[in-house]
Amino acid sequence: MGSSEKTILVTGGAGFIGTHTVVQLLNDGYRVSIIDNLDNSVIEAVHRVKDLVGPELSQKLDFNLGDLRNRDDLEKLFSKTKFDAVIHFAGLKAVAESVVYGQPEKIPCVEDFELKAMNPYGRTKLFLEEIARDIQKAEPDWSIILLRYFNPVGAHESGKIGEDPKGIPNNLMPYIQQVAVGRLPELNVYGHDYPTKDGSAVRDYIHVMDLADGHIAAVRKLFSSENIGCIAYNLGTGSGTSVLEMVAAFEKASGKKIPIKLCPRRPGDATAVYASTEKAQKELGWKAKYGIAEMCKDQWKWASNNPWGYQSKP
Amino acid sequence: MGSSEKTILVTGGAGFIGTHTVVQLLNDGYRVSIIDNLDNSVIEAVHRVKDLVGPELSQKLDFNLGDLRNRDDLEKLFSKTKFDAVIHFAGLKAVAESVVYGQPEKIPCVEDFELKAMNPYGRTKLFLEEIARDIQKAEPDWSIILLRYFNPVGAHESGKIGEDPKGIPNNLMPYIQQVAVGRLPELNVYGHDYPTKDGSAVRDYIHVMDLADGHIAAVRKLFSSENIGCIAYNLGTGSGTSVLEMVAAFEKASGKKIPIKLCPRRPGDATAVYASTEKAQKELGWKAKYGIAEMCKDQWKWASNNPWGYQSKP
Repeated sequence: MGSSEKTILVTGGAGFIGTHTVVQLLNDGYRVSIIDNLDNSVIEAVHRVKDLVGPELSQKLDFNLGDLRNRDDLEKLFSKTKFDAVIHFAGLKAVAESVVYGQPEKIPCVEDFELKAMNPYGRTKLFLEEIARDIQKAEPDWSIILLRYFNPVGAHESGKIGEDPKGIPNNLMPYIQQVAVGRLPELNVYGHDYPTKDGSAVRDYIHVMDLADGHIAAVRKLFSSENIGCIAYNLGTGSGTSVLEMVAAFEKASGKKIPIKLCPRRPGDATAVYASTEKAQKELGWKAKYGIAEMCKDQWKWASNNPWGYQSKP
Repeated sequence: MGSSEKTILVTGGAGFIGTHTVVQLLNDGYRVSIIDNLDNSVIEAVHRVKDLVGPELSQKLDFNLGDLRNRDDLEKLFSKTKFDAVIHFAGLKAVAESVVYGQPEKIPCVEDFELKAMNPYGRTKLFLEEIARDIQKAEPDWSIILLRYFNPVGAHESGKIGEDPKGIPNNLMPYIQQVAVGRLPELNVYGHDYPTKDGSAVRDYIHVMDLADGHIAAVRKLFSSENIGCIAYNLGTGSGTSVLEMVAAFEKASGKKIPIKLCPRRPGDATAVYASTEKAQKELGWKAKYGIAEMCKDQWKWASNNPWGYQSKP
């Protein structure tokens, strides 16, 4: 059975990573059902997805307004459609950074490192992994892939979809972007005395289109083998970028000056975190293609075309 | 403000540990509201509680049929009554034994041992402790006590309330009890070659009335200090009893022969687990009073008066 006959349920499909993954799923021939409660996303994002993939592929996309925590919403959804796989994005993001490996003892972070949550948000990620492992043990015919994101940034190259956080952004790139378009006056850089190349903290930023393709590779893996159990993969680039390097790259891509303010370190922030990418490359056949130049270029295209995100005016 | 003016919400108050704790709370002068969905308990248990404490104290008990997972049920409850503390018993028990310390590296188990869950049920206990700690960090004016039970057995000395599991019991004492009253033919003893005094596994059994009093001591602690943060206490006796010792004690208390069948060890069962009780004794001023003779005597009184539990006939 080809991908054209398979239907994927995407929870939280109207969000940042959700929309980009839905575009790639549709481009790859899958049918897609989204369930999203639009708590932290907007229906305009789904319209943009349809606009991007065109009228033919749009017919394979089914949007359902609903809440995963509502049993009736789920029963309606599952009685309407038979799904071949589920990609679960739905959730409320609370904290700036990827925190599941915590303050790693070594870098790069390999999948079999012990997970340490540094805050309640990280703990929810960890709980979900453990619950998924338990479900798979209880229902051994399930195949489950746990994808561990590093720091998703950038946007679709069309500039039509991208990240649109409500309120003051917590993450570096949406913050830089809002400084660049004049919505915020300057960027606070937390920590300039870390033992890194330029003193600022180092993270593994990954282009959201690479991340989306990582999900496609994972779905393919689920369908390609009879039973894979429950496996974790990092989705990162494997290389670290400092905050100041990212600011410089964004300035170059946008032609805008980003005023910064050097601030003290924040308690609990790790010095440097980046992914080991070997396992995903070997077992999913997936590797990130884009570097920080493309991340900044596409982020800026989205930002300059949509200075107020999906809203047409402030 | 004396305990007579305080109101305690008891979730799952119609269950085994719930009913015994409610009796002691009422005897201690508290007002009590129960919320229970009766998924794994019966309203007859609440009638027995009222019967036990008498008509005057019964007026201080308010039963609410409802489900904690239903927001409307909670809003109704909290808009009706202002609670001074909550004791949270509600939940579905899935596995035989107290498993939160897992296969302990040392015994007795001290509260600051790292918790290791050996199965999904243990994991839910662990998650709840972590969520409680996070809540307390986020809301520092909350005081939270985490009580870690060992193996609750026995019943109220009146023989009016006790444990009434649905289906085949998983736990040792209800199983022995059902053999004693003729509902089950024999007791399977899993493991007779453990490095213990008689080869059978050793656990810390605690009389449910001692456990109930441990909750009263914990509630008193919550009210006695301005802010205690989030603290864990073991509720156990601190001494280990083997399966075969418990069988012998029950035979003595009941005058009934309990046929046993020696079976292989079950994977994952620990050899010996018992509590360190120092912290609870020092900080809660609480210590278990009853030994296994009383546990068996009261279990048998409950069993012989109620061979089919709260049902009047099979």
